[in-house]
Amino acid sequence: MKNIIGILGGMGPAATADMFQKFIQFTPAHCDQEHIPLVISSIPDIPDRTTSILRGGESPLLAMEERIYGLENAGAKCILIACNTAHYWYDELKEKCHVDMLNIIDSTINEVLQMGKTKIGILATDATLATKLYQKTLEKYGLICLLPNEEHQKSVMESIYLYKSGEIQKAEELMLIQRDELIRYGAEVIILGCTEIPLILKNAMREQPTLYEDSTAALVRAAIRWYQTH
Amino acid sequence: MKNIIGILGGMGPAATADMFQKFIQFTPAHCDQEHIPLVISSIPDIPDRTTSILRGGESPLLAMEERIYGLENAGAKCILIACNTAHYWYDELKEKCHVDMLNIIDSTINEVLQMGKTKIGILATDATLATKLYQKTLEKYGLICLLPNEEHQKSVMESIYLYKSGEIQKAEELMLIQRDELIRYGAEVIILGCTEIPLILKNAMREQPTLYEDSTAALVRAAIRWYQTH
Repeated sequence: MKNIIGILGGMGPAATADMFQKFIQFTPAHCDQEHIPLVISSIPDIPDRTTSILRGGESPLLAMEERIYGLENAGAKCILIACNTAHYWYDELKEKCHVDMLNIIDSTINEVLQMGKTKIGILATDATLATKLYQKTLEKYGLICLLPNEEHQKSVMESIYLYKSGEIQKAEELMLIQRDELIRYGAEVIILGCTEIPLILKNAMREQPTLYEDSTAALVRAAIRWYQTH
Repeated sequence: MKNIIGILGGMGPAATADMFQKFIQFTPAHCDQEHIPLVISSIPDIPDRTTSILRGGESPLLAMEERIYGLENAGAKCILIACNTAHYWYDELKEKCHVDMLNIIDSTINEVLQMGKTKIGILATDATLATKLYQKTLEKYGLICLLPNEEHQKSVMESIYLYKSGEIQKAEELMLIQRDELIRYGAEVIILGCTEIPLILKNAMREQPTLYEDSTAALVRAAIRWYQTH
């Protein structure tokens, strides 16, 4: 059995399917057998990450741990978590995990650093911003983080939950306004720091691919490198 | 843990991703937590099914068995196989499997029978046709099966392997000709009896949705019913 990559997904399922699609799209394969072996857990009854961090809701930690063991039991040798906010628990999960684990925040920041831009917009959940998952490292490198103001950030969250509830067009319209706001602040590149956002801004990304740094895509590229070197 | 559905995929990965997408699309969910729990195995180094059946190539049976146990270990309570041709080994796999298993051929035929049509075209691999996976049951119900002639069937296979190798547009052009041929023979509905074909004919299906019976979609609908009753 080859070095299987395990995806801890379901947060939400559409973002997990997007990660799966990006593996297929980014792998130069000429037949089934040349594709990267994946095991994907999309078991979505995981307590909401933002609610847990910001409003003291039930922690998703145990549910995520359980799913990681499921992936290990299915043969995974490297785990990816298809959710930015969940990386608040990354260190704890990594400690419990018996195989390799890659970090979506680090993978994304590594790509941003190579762009040579200084003003970095971030579209992410309230909890990802409040816990400074991205800002801590970006500011260490002297980069300027541009975030939506309080009112606009409310709309970012509304857009994400609209998308999760199937209201795709409304989600897109609302997120485009928040993107424009970050550009108005001077953002030279915008991190899509929630795995739902590359889906919400799919059309916009096709029009201006270099304006965005897609965290899902960054993690998939890091995982393909892991696979090629193991 | 809820009743997890396990998908034995990787044959090929794009067809597996399509099955995942159809679960998301067909489930009336308002938040992550309402989606159906899935564990997906897309470990594609499984010996080619058609080569094994028709040209005595290595059997994929052991590789499929191994992946089913992986899904069981990850918590799956019902297994789906995202490949029509692989159903040649369905009975053997079902015997080895410790949980429920649904059949893509039966799910598809059940939907065809409800359509009240009599002339059924079939687009599938050489091996699916040679082993009469569809014809045996359809003819038992008095339906007429219309298959491409030898030359056209060669092009069906060529289209499937073109798609698997990433030549998506060429695959589509070639498959449309084979579809037209089945219509010329009098087909009232066309079974897409290979999980790659709904991807190859994606645009055509959007134009004339009632002309096709998509085997992937039929299996997903059967699995959603299984989930709702367990």
